[in-house]
Amino acid sequence: MIPNKNQLIQARERIQPYIHQTPVLSSKSINEIVGAKLYFKCENFQKMGAFKMRGAANALLQLSEAQKQMGVTTHSSGNFAQAVALSAKLTGTKATIVMPSNAPAVKKKAVIGYGATVIDCEPTLQARESTAQSIVNETGATLLHPYNCYNVIAGNSTATQELLEQTDHLDSIIAPIGGGGLISGTALAANYFSKVITYGSEPLGADDAYRSFKSGKLIPMVNPNTIADGLRTSLGDKGFPIIQKYVKDIFTVEEQEIIDALQLVWERMKIIIEPSCAVPLAAIIKNKEIFKNKAVGIIITGGNVDLKKLPF
Amino acid sequence: MIPNKNQLIQARERIQPYIHQTPVLSSKSINEIVGAKLYFKCENFQKMGAFKMRGAANALLQLSEAQKQMGVTTHSSGNFAQAVALSAKLTGTKATIVMPSNAPAVKKKAVIGYGATVIDCEPTLQARESTAQSIVNETGATLLHPYNCYNVIAGNSTATQELLEQTDHLDSIIAPIGGGGLISGTALAANYFSKVITYGSEPLGADDAYRSFKSGKLIPMVNPNTIADGLRTSLGDKGFPIIQKYVKDIFTVEEQEIIDALQLVWERMKIIIEPSCAVPLAAIIKNKEIFKNKAVGIIITGGNVDLKKLPF
Repeated sequence: MIPNKNQLIQARERIQPYIHQTPVLSSKSINEIVGAKLYFKCENFQKMGAFKMRGAANALLQLSEAQKQMGVTTHSSGNFAQAVALSAKLTGTKATIVMPSNAPAVKKKAVIGYGATVIDCEPTLQARESTAQSIVNETGATLLHPYNCYNVIAGNSTATQELLEQTDHLDSIIAPIGGGGLISGTALAANYFSKVITYGSEPLGADDAYRSFKSGKLIPMVNPNTIADGLRTSLGDKGFPIIQKYVKDIFTVEEQEIIDALQLVWERMKIIIEPSCAVPLAAIIKNKEIFKNKAVGIIITGGNVDLKKLPF
Repeated sequence: MIPNKNQLIQARERIQPYIHQTPVLSSKSINEIVGAKLYFKCENFQKMGAFKMRGAANALLQLSEAQKQMGVTTHSSGNFAQAVALSAKLTGTKATIVMPSNAPAVKKKAVIGYGATVIDCEPTLQARESTAQSIVNETGATLLHPYNCYNVIAGNSTATQELLEQTDHLDSIIAPIGGGGLISGTALAANYFSKVITYGSEPLGADDAYRSFKSGKLIPMVNPNTIADGLRTSLGDKGFPIIQKYVKDIFTVEEQEIIDALQLVWERMKIIIEPSCAVPLAAIIKNKEIFKNKAVGIIITGGNVDLKKLPF
């Protein structure tokens, strides 16, 4: 069932010892360019470098002692792998992470560095799911899903809960959409705790949430093609109804618009953000009239970037 | 005459409306790697992206009304050009900046963006100085020197004045050395306002301050060769006596050590810093025993990096 207000408050209390309250930054020069007042919620400064820590911690901390003793598992090539590994380390739980063989070596190293066991598999969704399932069958570990899970959504909502307290007034909040775990938590928190409007944003090359939202039917993403690697996943069926109910609109942006927004943040704000979190800024720049003179919160999802593969 | 304590306090009051009080950041994972508690004073978040704003503002604000009406000039290929241009804009002064013809287009654009006039010259120190001198002769403008100037040194000291207040306790502070303007201000503030020890750091490929310090004679830098472009200048004769009196030691580091430290900060802290400010961290990593378990302040000088020319 969709998390209620109380569950969001409890999630925040639950994970508080395990996460950073991240800062909210602004840039005068970007505000001038955009014609709005932007408040960047900097989850790139979160532990392990992404908001995923919040959802992973909230999901893991709700397991029973018996479940924790059996350990946890997930399949991920990226941030959720690190989030589960670090959450497991901080709570004394064993983690086994299935990673596709083409996942960057540096990410595998980070997961191992947090004390988790890494199991390689073929780089297909089928191989990832079947390998994770076999770990569940063999060890009794609990499978944690990166986004299609209400405990993860409630955990993710805490970024927006903080942002609302860290700002005097917001008109709207905008987040990117991949599997829907972040936008769902964002929209629930904005709705339960404020009158702030929630918008979503997506790359045109992975616009399944946009198409699902506009058609009213959940349409899976086939062959996503975008630099925003965190947003290639298909929208989950737990997030979709939340988006339908609580998100006002979804904007799509071109690849070059993402790259330009990414470069703008790196150059003007001197912070390292992932391509995924340049998508909301690109959407604001593309739709200046909607956001004109408004106070807008942007969830900066993370900062784990391969410095050897920059798009500039 | 070397600025006294009162002049440093006055400099801080004078420039306060024109600068940001920048944040001090820490990184648990870098602290674990280094075995010390590091406090990064983030002048990459300063206006125009570098500490140079402090010295430029302090120098400009001490001109008489008559001098201001005649305007200011300087020669610089980098941050000081932007610092003078922005300080001039904020104080309603005309600025004419001499820039070598090989200065990055993006830097010229930034200077022009702040409303200054840019005069191109041949990319030699001689051409820069003679062009700036001809502007002084023709217009009566005041020439501002990027580092060999007590007002600039006093302005630069304000970063350390802030850092000392923003931290509970420091054992030492370390800054990079180019022309000596930053280290001089740092050492004066540390000495006047605390018992904190000041260290300097330099690339081996531009180690004139190190050699001057060890020999007791000011040795100019010939053919500097380092990625740390902010540190290629020769140590000035105003900073040298301050370093001799107030700096405990100077460390030198290899190019690869600078690049490794730079990458460490980008990857772990998710902030964009210039190669110049990776030099102090590289020096700490190279001299772990000296800094073991100590609380160390590091002046992060700036974040103006050409994203198209990264060393990773």
